[in-house]
Amino acid sequence: MKIGIDMGGMSIKYGLVNDQNEIIARHVIPTNIEIKPEEFVKEMGKAVHDLLAQSSYTLDQIDGIGIGSAGIIDRENGVIVYSNNFNWWDVAIVEEFKKMFDLPIGIANDADTAALGETCAGAAKGHDNVVLLTLGTGVGSGVVINKKIFQGPLNGGCELGHITIVVDGYPCTCGNKGCLESYASATGLMRLAREAGEKNPESLLVKTVNGDLDEINGKVVFDCVEAGDETAKGVADAYLHYLSVGVAAAINIFRPEIVILGGGVAAQKEKLTSQIQSRIEKLIFGAKESEISRVVTSQLGNDAGIIGAANLI
Amino acid sequence: MKIGIDMGGMSIKYGLVNDQNEIIARHVIPTNIEIKPEEFVKEMGKAVHDLLAQSSYTLDQIDGIGIGSAGIIDRENGVIVYSNNFNWWDVAIVEEFKKMFDLPIGIANDADTAALGETCAGAAKGHDNVVLLTLGTGVGSGVVINKKIFQGPLNGGCELGHITIVVDGYPCTCGNKGCLESYASATGLMRLAREAGEKNPESLLVKTVNGDLDEINGKVVFDCVEAGDETAKGVADAYLHYLSVGVAAAINIFRPEIVILGGGVAAQKEKLTSQIQSRIEKLIFGAKESEISRVVTSQLGNDAGIIGAANLI
Repeated sequence: MKIGIDMGGMSIKYGLVNDQNEIIARHVIPTNIEIKPEEFVKEMGKAVHDLLAQSSYTLDQIDGIGIGSAGIIDRENGVIVYSNNFNWWDVAIVEEFKKMFDLPIGIANDADTAALGETCAGAAKGHDNVVLLTLGTGVGSGVVINKKIFQGPLNGGCELGHITIVVDGYPCTCGNKGCLESYASATGLMRLAREAGEKNPESLLVKTVNGDLDEINGKVVFDCVEAGDETAKGVADAYLHYLSVGVAAAINIFRPEIVILGGGVAAQKEKLTSQIQSRIEKLIFGAKESEISRVVTSQLGNDAGIIGAANLI
Repeated sequence: MKIGIDMGGMSIKYGLVNDQNEIIARHVIPTNIEIKPEEFVKEMGKAVHDLLAQSSYTLDQIDGIGIGSAGIIDRENGVIVYSNNFNWWDVAIVEEFKKMFDLPIGIANDADTAALGETCAGAAKGHDNVVLLTLGTGVGSGVVINKKIFQGPLNGGCELGHITIVVDGYPCTCGNKGCLESYASATGLMRLAREAGEKNPESLLVKTVNGDLDEINGKVVFDCVEAGDETAKGVADAYLHYLSVGVAAAINIFRPEIVILGGGVAAQKEKLTSQIQSRIEKLIFGAKESEISRVVTSQLGNDAGIIGAANLI
């Protein structure tokens, strides 16, 4: 029995995870960035006890605690090097947890724990080598090699979302230009849709949102494609091209058995993956001579982070 | 004592490699693609005996034979899946070698063995996590993680040269468009130089090659930059930008201790690496919060492949 913790900018989710990777008890507390990191971590410790209190288990039945956190993580030393969500620098969270719990404690980036969770119990169950791309506000990535999270020796994480796909292209929030994130995130899709909507105010795409272009999301775009709207088709085509380029890059590098797409855009499921699967064939090096990774959408949603964190132990 | 074999399109190089990673005997035979693979492999077996005959060692003192080959390699099954250099498909070379030698036999892609060789005995000696990019006709890549060649489970190799850096950009030999290879290879540099030379026929860049734009290479470009030629500066600036984008991608993904640049363009040594090192700082995700990989040029030249191959065993 392990505890998995998913630290996000809005809330901290706790789960008691059994050996079958089922979450048998849950607890959530809102993320409070007003207090100091040390107090914050103490509150997290209290929440672990609250989680256990909800279950029939006691601390001495727990094998360890795993934490997935947003930000740049030094896994070896158990430090959150930087997290813009928490506005933290160099918080030795594992050391702090060890003061409270005499247990193995592990930490990793939350995209990495999500990838591990999907590998252990979700969309990539039964596979050992997996790339997860989350298509949300940004493009997060987690890579699992031989059932373990891959992270190079220098801090910073495996950031597939920040490889450049358009030299000198659209500005990215990271300060660089033309990152995959700028084009393949939900934000990138919405930008493409807004640009197309402004040029085509009579389109079904614009009518569907009653002219409020900020209301266009992945579902609106793909629904309008199905209804035959040419403007939406143009948007989807451009977006799918950018995303395919990113998925192909992940495959050209990691050659995983499975690529999982998560985040808001992945709610489109087969509408998305069928398009990506057929498009990447033209983009993968040696596609004729090699097996092509399967592209699927995530299965566990928010639970992936909790289950993956528990599997750090 | 091991034997390393480097299979290239022009020649097959054999080396007897001792435990200090020194090549103590060498042999070379030209690559003969006119004969059948089975005969070719038999000739390779004969060459191993010829190599030993040149030394004071006998076969029973050899611990194994490692092979680095151009092409797509199935390492697990010891098969050259496809090599355009040899025009081979599905050649079970390890099985053939095992018929001739009762020894451990290993195989990997030649860019991978070069990366391993530089890690064991060259530019990355003392480090465990290394990315090699070779800047020649194309852009080859080899990745070493924890002192071992990284290759994902599906065949095709880790092809950083074929990630897209310019969506819908310049056509690549692989059939895709805008690959890093199209821009950061020696070929890409020569194309940039030719285009600039045509527009600036009075430039030092063009005068240096007496108007024969095909004669422009990395040395000509960087020498003309040093001499203050604006045309050459423009070419170098564009090339260095593309290459920096590729190096930054490798770092954003693998976070290695060292990135090694090899191939023809790397002959420019510090002129190249000092520029790349300073440019990547702006391109790496989380650069302020993480240590930045060091960029160096290769040290072992052609020997990297032989030494790396020997270290497959």
